Amino acid sequence: MITGKNYIGQQQSAKGSKTYKTFNPLLNAENEAKFTEATTEEINDALQLATDAFVEYKSTSGAKKAEFLNAIADEILALDDKLISTYCSETGLPEGRAKGERGRTVGQLRSFADLVKESSWVEATIDTAQPDRQPMPKSDIRKLLVPLGPVVVFGASNFPLAYSTAGGDTAAALASGCPVIVKSHPMHAGTGELVASAIVTAAEKTGMPNGIFSNINSSGIDVGAQLVKHPQVKAVGFTGSIKGGRALYNMAAERKEPIPVFAEMGSINPVVMLPEALKQRGDDLAKTYAGSITLGTGQFCTNPGLILGLKSDELSQFINTLSDEIVKIEPSCMLHPNIHNAFQKNKEKIISQSYTELVAYYTDDVKTNHASQAILTVDGDTFLNNTTLHQEVFGPFSVVVQCKDTKQLETIISHLEGQLTGTVISDSGEIDKYPAVISALQNRVGRLIFNGVPTGVEVCPSMVHGGPYPSSTDSRFTAVGIHSIKRWVRPFSYQDWPNNLLPDELKKENPLGISRLVNNNQTKAPIK
Amino acid sequence: MITGKNYIGQQQSAKGSKTYKTFNPLLNAENEAKFTEATTEEINDALQLATDAFVEYKSTSGAKKAEFLNAIADEILALDDKLISTYCSETGLPEGRAKGERGRTVGQLRSFADLVKESSWVEATIDTAQPDRQPMPKSDIRKLLVPLGPVVVFGASNFPLAYSTAGGDTAAALASGCPVIVKSHPMHAGTGELVASAIVTAAEKTGMPNGIFSNINSSGIDVGAQLVKHPQVKAVGFTGSIKGGRALYNMAAERKEPIPVFAEMGSINPVVMLPEALKQRGDDLAKTYAGSITLGTGQFCTNPGLILGLKSDELSQFINTLSDEIVKIEPSCMLHPNIHNAFQKNKEKIISQSYTELVAYYTDDVKTNHASQAILTVDGDTFLNNTTLHQEVFGPFSVVVQCKDTKQLETIISHLEGQLTGTVISDSGEIDKYPAVISALQNRVGRLIFNGVPTGVEVCPSMVHGGPYPSSTDSRFTAVGIHSIKRWVRPFSYQDWPNNLLPDELKKENPLGISRLVNNNQTKAPIK
Repeated sequence: MITGKNYIGQQQSAKGSKTYKTFNPLLNAENEAKFTEATTEEINDALQLATDAFVEYKSTSGAKKAEFLNAIADEILALDDKLISTYCSETGLPEGRAKGERGRTVGQLRSFADLVKESSWVEATIDTAQPDRQPMPKSDIRKLLVPLGPVVVFGASNFPLAYSTAGGDTAAALASGCPVIVKSHPMHAGTGELVASAIVTAAEKTGMPNGIFSNINSSGIDVGAQLVKHPQVKAVGFTGSIKGGRALYNMAAERKEPIPVFAEMGSINPVVMLPEALKQRGDDLAKTYAGSITLGTGQFCTNPGLILGLKSDELSQFINTLSDEIVKIEPSCMLHPNIHNAFQKNKEKIISQSYTELVAYYTDDVKTNHASQAILTVDGDTFLNNTTLHQEVFGPFSVVVQCKDTKQLETIISHLEGQLTGTVISDSGEIDKYPAVISALQNRVGRLIFNGVPTGVEVCPSMVHGGPYPSSTDSRFTAVGIHSIKRWVRPFSYQDWPNNLLPDELKKENPLGISRLVNNNQTKAPIK
Repeated sequence: MITGKNYIGQQQSAKGSKTYKTFNPLLNAENEAKFTEATTEEINDALQLATDAFVEYKSTSGAKKAEFLNAIADEILALDDKLISTYCSETGLPEGRAKGERGRTVGQLRSFADLVKESSWVEATIDTAQPDRQPMPKSDIRKLLVPLGPVVVFGASNFPLAYSTAGGDTAAALASGCPVIVKSHPMHAGTGELVASAIVTAAEKTGMPNGIFSNINSSGIDVGAQLVKHPQVKAVGFTGSIKGGRALYNMAAERKEPIPVFAEMGSINPVVMLPEALKQRGDDLAKTYAGSITLGTGQFCTNPGLILGLKSDELSQFINTLSDEIVKIEPSCMLHPNIHNAFQKNKEKIISQSYTELVAYYTDDVKTNHASQAILTVDGDTFLNNTTLHQEVFGPFSVVVQCKDTKQLETIISHLEGQLTGTVISDSGEIDKYPAVISALQNRVGRLIFNGVPTGVEVCPSMVHGGPYPSSTDSRFTAVGIHSIKRWVRPFSYQDWPNNLLPDELKKENPLGISRLVNNNQTKAPIK
């Protein structure tokens, strides 16, 4: 049952008076459950519990943390239909998507469980003593990665499971040894509460300290601001808009003790269509991209919002086919009326500019909260001179830019803000003729794709989801894949520390059998 | 010959009108050479050159970068006596220290050369395609670490070689593939120019692109601010005061595109003296710590400025012996009159407080710019209630806190700001009785030392030099050791990218023979 209460550690709590409900965009009606926004007292309690829990949790073994993470996955699956129906009622997304995202969420938890159970991820690095070294003896020094402390995670509107309560940020932070306080996303607070209950149950079943996890309800910005400014918070994860992410980043940077904020924000994911590829298979590409632009109602951070080509007959033909194909696709429901309204407003703002040419717009009857996809085109000079066109329109929308030559294509790419992805569509060998274009694109993105679509973010160790600002606030980390754990840890050295007091990862016997860099040699062997 | 000019790429340049000189604190007189502060035009030129150079340098092979780094080391050594005498004349430090620091600087350059020549540091991670996977085929994705772009390095006052022009920040950034613009430290601008000339010569000899390195003169804060705010700068390295580092951090965070700032700032490096150890060898410890507190005139960031013990006869005896020993040590010269004046002012401010007890103060005749070492003591309550005592006094100065019990010792540690190091002095087995104290200390520091002194930072892979704020602005990185290269890089993915266009580190043949994570298995084998 959804209670609408916060989880302050393992306790449900609703001390506040401000309440709110979630919304079913398909029914265009509020859902029943009423959620109570957290109070300052509840926030302080959650942080004190997290700080206390950190003392024990930071040195909990990888094997125990793995049990906990796997138990969260099990408890999420045990929520079964209740979770799926709540998810659908709070998002308007279909059941297949809900189940797919659940699978991804569970998979992420299990992959972090595997990672920390194996334990080599701590990058154990050992330089043994040289007592006879001249002119000075050398100490024994041993390093590993240790957790930062309580992490606040802001759930994403567009991934109620995979990037929210028990999503990638939470899974990575818990795996690293950090307690997590989730600022629940108000659009899917019920889904959030159910997942939070799964985490709390898993924590109890596996004997984790109370306070390792809290779930904080809030419909405005005040609670989130309190969390980011709270002196006991040591890092922040966020997935959402540039405006929201930047506001949190600024708050964190202005603290007496600044803390890291990893915010994964907007991106228009430029796609470069090279001419030979367009000649060979422009129609197929148009069909593929009509699908990619409208996938998930365009509500993916990797949605292709910008298509770049060289002005030519084949580009014109591509635009025509893309336009024909995209209006064949039935509009689908957006996550929330607010998101739908923002899409309408941002789309119309660009369409109404005299310098843009509207080439496709779904204009048949469209149901409430459903998104009418649109395609615009402009020439390269227009794009360069109007930075409004460089901004993300969250939804099924894309701008095709017709560049006058390769130099302009390169210039446009160099002037783009940072992006999650860049895609190159090329005939075999054609790409070799555009080294400057590729080099410029590489500087602006976190992931380069060849002959594919940017939508679809594989969860695997080689994935980079993140990129130069504003696609993320710290391009030195990825938000997806096992290496995203590095956002929440810091290196830590022990010098001449007694072997029995060292963490297992650094003991001379290497009891965990992990891979370590010992005197500059990567090995699983114990130290003699 | 020292010209006093900036290096804007490989060109010497002095377009400005503002000049300044360095100072010999031993002679208490200005040195002869006159340095010309860089103009905005010169700064812009340096950044444009760096941006252009980055296009080529970012994909320069590890082997070529290694040649360059080793050539810098060679050219620094070739400067020979000229460098050593200039260093001494600008710092008042003895020749032995100059040569030791030169050795360390050269060693750092060579260790980064080894790292990038071998090339496994890029953390190549490969997940091969699964075209038949259900329900969706899996793409081939390959990740490596790539350089961020032009990095600005601010030289440190207290390490004219090892943390300045060609110091750790520069070596790591050049190794990673980032161009470097050094903001030369005004106190040792001549040393800086000589080292810059070595870098420029090495760049020319090894065919590096012009703009890979610039050396910018400045005696105020304006030039540094221009550099940090410059849109073509992508990261900043700094070693110095909390005030200076925080100002740069704030500027970087307020940019339209915020950039990472790694600032290594102040620290008082708490030392916990456990009672049994004091009983057994208090006098020896007092002698050792008198040496550590005055080493390098107390001008090390790891200087032990805070000694914590439990109120007892043995602690009183330790304080007496430390006092006796420290005034036996002849005062030495500080780096600059400004540093000496700041030391006097900060020390006197604390001594003049009614709540502190002065137990040692070198009061014999002291030469100009030489530092009179001092030791104070306070009780635990006084320390907790007066945060002035928590601040660094840069110089040979330390406060001994007499805690009333173990709980207060733990409380004091928990209330400290972030520190580079924490040291525990313990009899065999004694430390086992203080788990809460050790846990609290671990939360506050980057490196824990057992029965040693914090001064002396070994340059090796296991070293962490950095820690929770304000000891550094980003505890997720170290400023010393090969892993400090990670400050200047970001992960980058290629999806389905043609093998011949991939960087060598990711090609299926593994032509560099590096260690890679291939389908979750660490291996040097090629991919079939």
